Amino acid sequence: MCILPPQFACYKAGFCHKYLNYTMEVKNTIQSGNIPTPALAIQAERAKATFDPELMNHFLEGSKEKSDEIKQMIQQMERDPILQVSSKVYDMTKAEHRLETARKIARLASYIESENFSSFENRMSLVSLMDPQLHTRIGVHLGLFLGCIRGNGTSEQMYYWVLNKEAAYVKQIYGCFAMTELAHGSNVAGLETTATYDVENEQFVINTPHIGATKWWIGGAAHSATHTTVYARLIVKGKDYGVKTFVVPLRDSNHNLNPGVVVGDIGAKMGRDGIDNGWIQFSNVRIPRYNMLQKYCKVSADGEVTEPPNNQLSYSALLGGRVVMVKDSFRWSAKVVTIAIRYAIARRQFKASKAGENDGENQIMNYPLHQRRLIPLLATAYAFSNGANVLDQLSKKTMDSLDHAVSQDDKAGIDKGIEEMKSLFVASGSLKSTCTWSTLNTIEQCRQACGGHGYSSYSGFGKTYNDWAVQCTWEGDNNILGMSIGKQLVKNISGVIKDGNKATGILDFLNNTKQYLNNEIVLKKDQLESLEQVLKAVEVALIRTANQALADLDKNGEDWDYIGARLVELSKMLAHFFMLKSFLEKFNTLEEGPMKSVLKQLAQLYSSSVILEGFSGIFLTFKVLDSDTVSYLSSEYIQKLCADLRPHVIPLTDAFNLSDMIINSSLGNYDGNVYENFFKIVKDRNPAPGSYTAPYEEEFRAHLNRPSLEDRQRNEINEDNEELV
Amino acid sequence: MCILPPQFACYKAGFCHKYLNYTMEVKNTIQSGNIPTPALAIQAERAKATFDPELMNHFLEGSKEKSDEIKQMIQQMERDPILQVSSKVYDMTKAEHRLETARKIARLASYIESENFSSFENRMSLVSLMDPQLHTRIGVHLGLFLGCIRGNGTSEQMYYWVLNKEAAYVKQIYGCFAMTELAHGSNVAGLETTATYDVENEQFVINTPHIGATKWWIGGAAHSATHTTVYARLIVKGKDYGVKTFVVPLRDSNHNLNPGVVVGDIGAKMGRDGIDNGWIQFSNVRIPRYNMLQKYCKVSADGEVTEPPNNQLSYSALLGGRVVMVKDSFRWSAKVVTIAIRYAIARRQFKASKAGENDGENQIMNYPLHQRRLIPLLATAYAFSNGANVLDQLSKKTMDSLDHAVSQDDKAGIDKGIEEMKSLFVASGSLKSTCTWSTLNTIEQCRQACGGHGYSSYSGFGKTYNDWAVQCTWEGDNNILGMSIGKQLVKNISGVIKDGNKATGILDFLNNTKQYLNNEIVLKKDQLESLEQVLKAVEVALIRTANQALADLDKNGEDWDYIGARLVELSKMLAHFFMLKSFLEKFNTLEEGPMKSVLKQLAQLYSSSVILEGFSGIFLTFKVLDSDTVSYLSSEYIQKLCADLRPHVIPLTDAFNLSDMIINSSLGNYDGNVYENFFKIVKDRNPAPGSYTAPYEEEFRAHLNRPSLEDRQRNEINEDNEELV
Repeated sequence: MCILPPQFACYKAGFCHKYLNYTMEVKNTIQSGNIPTPALAIQAERAKATFDPELMNHFLEGSKEKSDEIKQMIQQMERDPILQVSSKVYDMTKAEHRLETARKIARLASYIESENFSSFENRMSLVSLMDPQLHTRIGVHLGLFLGCIRGNGTSEQMYYWVLNKEAAYVKQIYGCFAMTELAHGSNVAGLETTATYDVENEQFVINTPHIGATKWWIGGAAHSATHTTVYARLIVKGKDYGVKTFVVPLRDSNHNLNPGVVVGDIGAKMGRDGIDNGWIQFSNVRIPRYNMLQKYCKVSADGEVTEPPNNQLSYSALLGGRVVMVKDSFRWSAKVVTIAIRYAIARRQFKASKAGENDGENQIMNYPLHQRRLIPLLATAYAFSNGANVLDQLSKKTMDSLDHAVSQDDKAGIDKGIEEMKSLFVASGSLKSTCTWSTLNTIEQCRQACGGHGYSSYSGFGKTYNDWAVQCTWEGDNNILGMSIGKQLVKNISGVIKDGNKATGILDFLNNTKQYLNNEIVLKKDQLESLEQVLKAVEVALIRTANQALADLDKNGEDWDYIGARLVELSKMLAHFFMLKSFLEKFNTLEEGPMKSVLKQLAQLYSSSVILEGFSGIFLTFKVLDSDTVSYLSSEYIQKLCADLRPHVIPLTDAFNLSDMIINSSLGNYDGNVYENFFKIVKDRNPAPGSYTAPYEEEFRAHLNRPSLEDRQRNEINEDNEELV
Repeated sequence: MCILPPQFACYKAGFCHKYLNYTMEVKNTIQSGNIPTPALAIQAERAKATFDPELMNHFLEGSKEKSDEIKQMIQQMERDPILQVSSKVYDMTKAEHRLETARKIARLASYIESENFSSFENRMSLVSLMDPQLHTRIGVHLGLFLGCIRGNGTSEQMYYWVLNKEAAYVKQIYGCFAMTELAHGSNVAGLETTATYDVENEQFVINTPHIGATKWWIGGAAHSATHTTVYARLIVKGKDYGVKTFVVPLRDSNHNLNPGVVVGDIGAKMGRDGIDNGWIQFSNVRIPRYNMLQKYCKVSADGEVTEPPNNQLSYSALLGGRVVMVKDSFRWSAKVVTIAIRYAIARRQFKASKAGENDGENQIMNYPLHQRRLIPLLATAYAFSNGANVLDQLSKKTMDSLDHAVSQDDKAGIDKGIEEMKSLFVASGSLKSTCTWSTLNTIEQCRQACGGHGYSSYSGFGKTYNDWAVQCTWEGDNNILGMSIGKQLVKNISGVIKDGNKATGILDFLNNTKQYLNNEIVLKKDQLESLEQVLKAVEVALIRTANQALADLDKNGEDWDYIGARLVELSKMLAHFFMLKSFLEKFNTLEEGPMKSVLKQLAQLYSSSVILEGFSGIFLTFKVLDSDTVSYLSSEYIQKLCADLRPHVIPLTDAFNLSDMIINSSLGNYDGNVYENFFKIVKDRNPAPGSYTAPYEEEFRAHLNRPSLEDRQRNEINEDNEELV
């Protein structure tokens, strides 16, 4: 039975090609035969939509207002000749990327100068997707440099640098963030650059003692930065107070390096070549005392050091970035899933195994395996969108209330704030690591799903992968972060079991631990459709796994390193727990209707494939599921959900509201006309064959037409010569 | 207790730095403090070796002779100023890559001209590792173009093109392989280019009917090729005989395109930019009748078509490439694992959780999680080396005996050869897809294991990933291939169960099906150390999974597409079965000793982590393992094996015998002196900071020093103006 609406009834694989051919033969070029018609295929999908993608976008963005603002910003930027991106980026050299990015910073600054913070955040979130190197390069200044001053400086220091010196408007000052060193990354407390206080001159002397302490990977250092915030060991009167932060000028207003400062370019990277990452060595560079950021730790003129009461307060600098990366995970996943799904509608390959004699090649989206490869990734992007919104709000609320408590010097409020901050740290850490890993996988899977064409730079996948990959490493290496989150989980369950503590925030489900430490199957085959029951199963799996980790820890004499792999596993499951829980809460507020029922199927697919099947080893080991259920999941249930969602894939990807400029892929345009689009980009971006030969063709031809080997060996090797000896 | 030999007893994290510092302070630059000493660390590892890495290399390469030859070839190429590679490749533009690759082809051809086939194969295997784009670009001509003529042409045709026209020596003719089209990849039978026979002129007319049939991705077409083998539909007297192969000249000896032929450059790719992939359109291009390759299907002068009796014979063209990709999987995995492990010995980070007060930062290789991330990948590379050798021999034996039977017109021999070929197809297909996926993962995991520095181009990971990625797609998309292999498995088990057939070759374990179709646990906790027992468990898991797939197939009316995901899973498990089985067979021939015991641990780690834990969902679902065993695997056993192998990691990677040129990574040199090496490459490859400012710095500075927003808005926005209305 044909499920298409009447106006598209003629469109079905293998039918009506005569009619379509007729339409095509009066086109601009002469073509004959079984001409592909991918654009009609995508139109047919849109005609089947059961919900309004516009309204779905409000769900994805969290509100109509945000959705509208984002649309307007995309329009602004796609019309802006400096900020717009195109397939040109896939052919640019590193030098070109660097130049363009510098120009874009100037242009973007003019938007930022007169925009409020919430709009700025939304704009940056889009910039991160359409032009990741621009996002990072300006983000180092606005997010890390200024964030470090805001987080560690007194309010007077903040006012001075951020507003008085106009750094907030990308004016006068361009800052970088000199934390990592050549031999030191994740272990910030082990950094070796020194800041020695010279009481006599009331100055700090910044020094790089050896090659390993060379500041490394510093975005903006190579060409742009006038200043940097340096993470260095505070040494006062011979005593090492650990790592603190200092503002150090690198270049004067003529952009000449200050004495004692040497910077260099660290060169080519896997991706984001538009950022001028550099290295910095300080050779006894002197800065005034007031250039140390002294919100918490203070050094008086005569060298008296006051340490902060709550050290944790100063570790919030990287939190914001983690929240951003969860948002990025949603947007980037949405982008690549859109490309792969639009391509899967356009592309036809083989006959279906149950095809009739007259059927032509089948759309690859119709193959169950292809559905299973792509639709769970689509469902994951949907789960991430809501999860990112919830995390974003949680983060703002927590930061605001802590800031408020600090400004009022409200001790109880500060303690409460720190508790909430810890919970936020757990949530954002598990989500940052899990979502960035998941997105890296999504990009690669979507590339593979586009077959050979996914390997063309113009498909966008290569650059997207290369640009994304660093998200798994920076601002908290995913494994280190995962271990630290897992550790919190195990410490909390230990507290609940051994000390009768009460777990709070994202971990409050641990209070049910005792009830679930048994071998009872929690999720039965007939309960798979219930999101509440799946959520409970995840809770129980987390509890039992954490309990096992605790037992392993005790058995190995409290050696946390020994259970590292389990800790990371726990962190991953916790992130999915957060996503599913948030989704369910939002879901329960929605009006019944076709949109809600599609969202339910997406949530069911996400939980059954990504969570239950993805961690089936855990669920089976700890007897949360039985093997019949897992077998049913793999053999039937997931496939059924994919098939149910199949008709909605185009409206669901359209709902991401990503314009062709943002998608920037030969395979992912809205019109679905992949072959014409791809061919056009290839011709536009590469010299026309008629007017062009490669510069080395002559050389190559000379090689092909070279004299014979015997001639070139001067005929020295022959049987006659055998007689010479 | 210090396990180092006496001469390194002074070397232990946190000890003796005073002594080391003293040594360092008389070096070429002034350095102070806790100077990193990674080179000493790797020396200490080598001093602990319990076996001779040289002898281990004979195991890896399959023989001492091959090992020696490979060493000599590496030496030749690392001294050759044209063929050698260096960190320069990480900064080259596409145009530079293309030029260099063309020059390298000319140079490589001079080696090939006087080398026997087995040496040529070994050389190409090295070239594939050190310079993948060179390998592919020359491989398209030597492997695909000539392979197609050899496979599909008569022996006279072969003699004519390959020897008479000197194509075998990369002389006169440079060929490409025009199979895929813009709208057609894996489904070769669906290609749409036509070759219509014109009886009157005894010519074929080659035509591209529409955009979708444009030949696409054709390596060598854009700039190099003089000829191509075209896959096109043979049309004779209006009848379509399906896809056959034709030799079509593209350019004359002046390298001008022939009339009716248009080619273009398809431009930038994710990797391998040195290959001039192109597109080709044929507009009624005429070729003589003898340019059709007629080993099997023949067209006589008057248009009589004779179809071959055994169609399968002509499908062997891609087999060779698949075997090569399994060898590549070994070499590439070996390379990246070497980099990541050398770095993990050099790099120190955090204190161990059980460290004493005086211990310094711990080598990251000592962390159980890091061991678990890397050592299974090392074990996998070892399994792949032997598996690739076995597959290679199997392939040669099968091809030779089939060729012999064909040449003797020995019908029984041909039938037997075809049966063996089918088994080879299953083995090579499952191995190609599984090993290339595994290697892609290995590259990414090794990159992540090097933290931020893995993101530098000079680490080599980015380019390696980008160059490798296409292996999962080309010459048989991994999913399509996986499905077809899984299908063979299910068909065979169905034959065994339903028809009492006997399975042969790689699938002969299926003959035990009936005995294992129950719920009996096959592998108990105390049997994990027995490789034989693990192998049996994999057999049983394959049998039970295939049986489930068969049941699902029957339930869904023989819809093979429906069980696609299962089929791919089966193919993956089959590949690991082949690897483990081959390893075991080889292992049993080795002399007892320290080398053999390390190999046993590697095999145990491979089977327990990659196979048993990697497919734990399957093993638990089909009750081959019980949950206690899986829990023990995850909590203890794998970790213990990693710890046992930890002291051997440097000798085990040294045994790959890869010189610094081949490794080509800032992080992976033999001397282990990572920080000095990395810094040197960065300085060599990038302009010295003192003599250089970015070309755009002036522009950027002007932006920073721009007038205020109010000035630029001509002070139009102010409170006074409010009074204007």
